Amino acid sequence: MNLLERLIKSLSRLPGVGRKSAARIAHYLLKADPAFVAKLALEIGTLREKIHPCPVCGNFTDEELCPVCSDPRRDQSQICVIEEPQDVATIESTGEYNGLFHVLGGAINPMNGVGPGDLAISQLIKRASAPEVREIIIATNPTVEGDTTALYLQNLLRDHPVEVSRLASGLPVGGDLEYADKLTLARSFRGRTKL
Amino acid sequence: MNLLERLIKSLSRLPGVGRKSAARIAHYLLKADPAFVAKLALEIGTLREKIHPCPVCGNFTDEELCPVCSDPRRDQSQICVIEEPQDVATIESTGEYNGLFHVLGGAINPMNGVGPGDLAISQLIKRASAPEVREIIIATNPTVEGDTTALYLQNLLRDHPVEVSRLASGLPVGGDLEYADKLTLARSFRGRTKL
Repeated sequence: MNLLERLIKSLSRLPGVGRKSAARIAHYLLKADPAFVAKLALEIGTLREKIHPCPVCGNFTDEELCPVCSDPRRDQSQICVIEEPQDVATIESTGEYNGLFHVLGGAINPMNGVGPGDLAISQLIKRASAPEVREIIIATNPTVEGDTTALYLQNLLRDHPVEVSRLASGLPVGGDLEYADKLTLARSFRGRTKL
Repeated sequence: MNLLERLIKSLSRLPGVGRKSAARIAHYLLKADPAFVAKLALEIGTLREKIHPCPVCGNFTDEELCPVCSDPRRDQSQICVIEEPQDVATIESTGEYNGLFHVLGGAINPMNGVGPGDLAISQLIKRASAPEVREIIIATNPTVEGDTTALYLQNLLRDHPVEVSRLASGLPVGGDLEYADKLTLARSFRGRTKL
């Protein structure tokens, strides 16, 4: 197998990249600006040595602390609990939230052998005990695993002097009642807001 | 901008990879087997120095000649003319063809300033003059540009003692008449075969 075929095989291991996209990307790289290709290779090659989890919140960073934890303008009274580091960027892109984050590293999933001990839950409880923290916003995914994790955290935080909230679940904006699944529609009824 | 954001930006320049897929790939690389990530970086980094066009057919290779041109078992009497090097893999995957290839490097496209002189056409005419060559199969895309190029090549090859053919155009296998566009349907009428 020659280098081009090996590259296509490697690229097709990436998420969302099939055999055809991999071939397209490889041929794009053969034609693209060599400086860009060299930069991409360097970025991929140095990623693992330079990027590590933030010791406070678990978000990825190449500094000592992540950009959110090291920013004094962030609201130190709110902690948003998420499953994965990539959720930080998703929430940041809304511009709706200015507090801190806490990455659990997954959700409770007994079927896959993920228990509470496998997640960064004790670190969260410790952070929630700080006097400046007033609200824990649980933003785990609206799935069975995410909901189970949210319930578990809610119970753990019951005796803490913090408010615990959960992101609203319901109809997506721009969606259509007709296309909503039953569970989402049911949940949007239960979570209906007064006008 | 930190390294992770720079990598996501670089990845989102790749064809078919948007901002969200780029973030997903970057986070996958952070979790994947480090040996795989190092291999991928090396493959991308060495691609441009190791891979070059085959001097005979224009297909990409890391050897002196490409695997098709250097394989004596390939039928030396047929040359399949394609627009881009990646078309070789597409045609090879069908297992239908055992001849040689010739990469034009594009198609005649006056709107984008691509004339016959910008394509590897003189090299094709030279190859078509070899005594062992009996058929030139034109496999440019079934687009205005590809058809124009096919017509141009057909005229050029008129005085050569070779048969010139063009890949059949018509209804895709497994397709539905209802969903076929008018041009494809019209062409499948013109190209109908006797049963």
